[in-house]
Amino acid sequence: MQPPETPAPAGPFSQSEQDAVYRAIFTRRDVRSQFTDRPLSDALLMRLLKAAHHAPSVGFMQPWNFIVIRSAAVKAQVQDAFSRANAEAVGMFAEDRRPLYSALKLEGIATAPVNLCITCDRTRGGKVVLGRTHNRDMDIYSTVCAVQNLWLAARAEGLGVGWVSIFHESDMRLILNLPDHVVPVAYLCIGHVDSLYQTPELQAKGWQDRLSLEDLVFADRWGNAKAPQD
Amino acid sequence: MQPPETPAPAGPFSQSEQDAVYRAIFTRRDVRSQFTDRPLSDALLMRLLKAAHHAPSVGFMQPWNFIVIRSAAVKAQVQDAFSRANAEAVGMFAEDRRPLYSALKLEGIATAPVNLCITCDRTRGGKVVLGRTHNRDMDIYSTVCAVQNLWLAARAEGLGVGWVSIFHESDMRLILNLPDHVVPVAYLCIGHVDSLYQTPELQAKGWQDRLSLEDLVFADRWGNAKAPQD
Repeated sequence: MQPPETPAPAGPFSQSEQDAVYRAIFTRRDVRSQFTDRPLSDALLMRLLKAAHHAPSVGFMQPWNFIVIRSAAVKAQVQDAFSRANAEAVGMFAEDRRPLYSALKLEGIATAPVNLCITCDRTRGGKVVLGRTHNRDMDIYSTVCAVQNLWLAARAEGLGVGWVSIFHESDMRLILNLPDHVVPVAYLCIGHVDSLYQTPELQAKGWQDRLSLEDLVFADRWGNAKAPQD
Repeated sequence: MQPPETPAPAGPFSQSEQDAVYRAIFTRRDVRSQFTDRPLSDALLMRLLKAAHHAPSVGFMQPWNFIVIRSAAVKAQVQDAFSRANAEAVGMFAEDRRPLYSALKLEGIATAPVNLCITCDRTRGGKVVLGRTHNRDMDIYSTVCAVQNLWLAARAEGLGVGWVSIFHESDMRLILNLPDHVVPVAYLCIGHVDSLYQTPELQAKGWQDRLSLEDLVFADRWGNAKAPQD
């Protein structure tokens, strides 16, 4: 075995392993309503957090923290903050969209056994971080990579994850007692699921269709149509 | 078979499938130097882009575009932009860190057969997007989720990915002809690899160690130590 300071042989996964990775990617859903009441063990939760902790981070900064929320009182405060913001949100849409918007369930805060806030500490690693010298938001991007790692691991484990984003950040800061230098990047509801939508829920319910991938690909510069595929 | 409008049974993956997902997560690396000169086919590239396109997105907004760069001329312009920014970057570090910083190879722009810029169109989906009413950056976060999906699919396919972030955004906008409403979120170098570091390269080379996960986990509110694990 080579020492860890040296690259070691690393080829493609077997076909069945590749299939498993793509299965996680293609069948992952944003879950609001499918959480069962089965408890989520700390051991399983720590497997998810380990997956998140192995995300790429700029300068190996690892700017994330994980606030695991099991307290019903904290969840209730978050639920209130969501409800206030969501009442504001509905009025922002065109009138013909409001009935459908109001009919959508957009969170599972109280029903998910665990809520998880993944934060970004913007001071971690000191004032100058490798790779963050010209884009200050690379630490936030790293934190989002951790979210996606966790989401895919959760799918494989039979857990659903829902990302709730309809809050005033100031409410979240107050509820979770966040210091000024820490940004709440993602608020996730996590729990076991027995079923999932086969397409994204917003597609299944007629809110928005999937775009054609081919229309989103350019060659070399913005706007250059990509040549026909092999 | 149930219609797509209804949740369908969805349990945990088999143990071997779970192992494959975790293998992708734990063995993914940020690659700068291990690209081989084996060409990257369009068919394989499109599998990666399909994985990216199945990322979660706020309001199913799908704000991403994919600029596939195979042109040596465009790569050379990007390489120049990187070199200028990196020369500025080295001077930002404390003197005792500069020799190691300068010794690190931080990009594989010219050696990777494909460069890929993943962008975020901040106007997609109209002025009001579900879930983005209270956090305008949720579209950027969605785009980063697409990056991480692609990165994990690439690992399974035997491809390396390196994220290059040391640029002035204005240079990238000019080179890729980006409209004002489109943000370049990630500039990636992609190619086949035969070997990878067993730990993150910045750890292997003594730049930064991995933090202890347990120290990053709080209970219910910031700063509350998590109870001992099961």
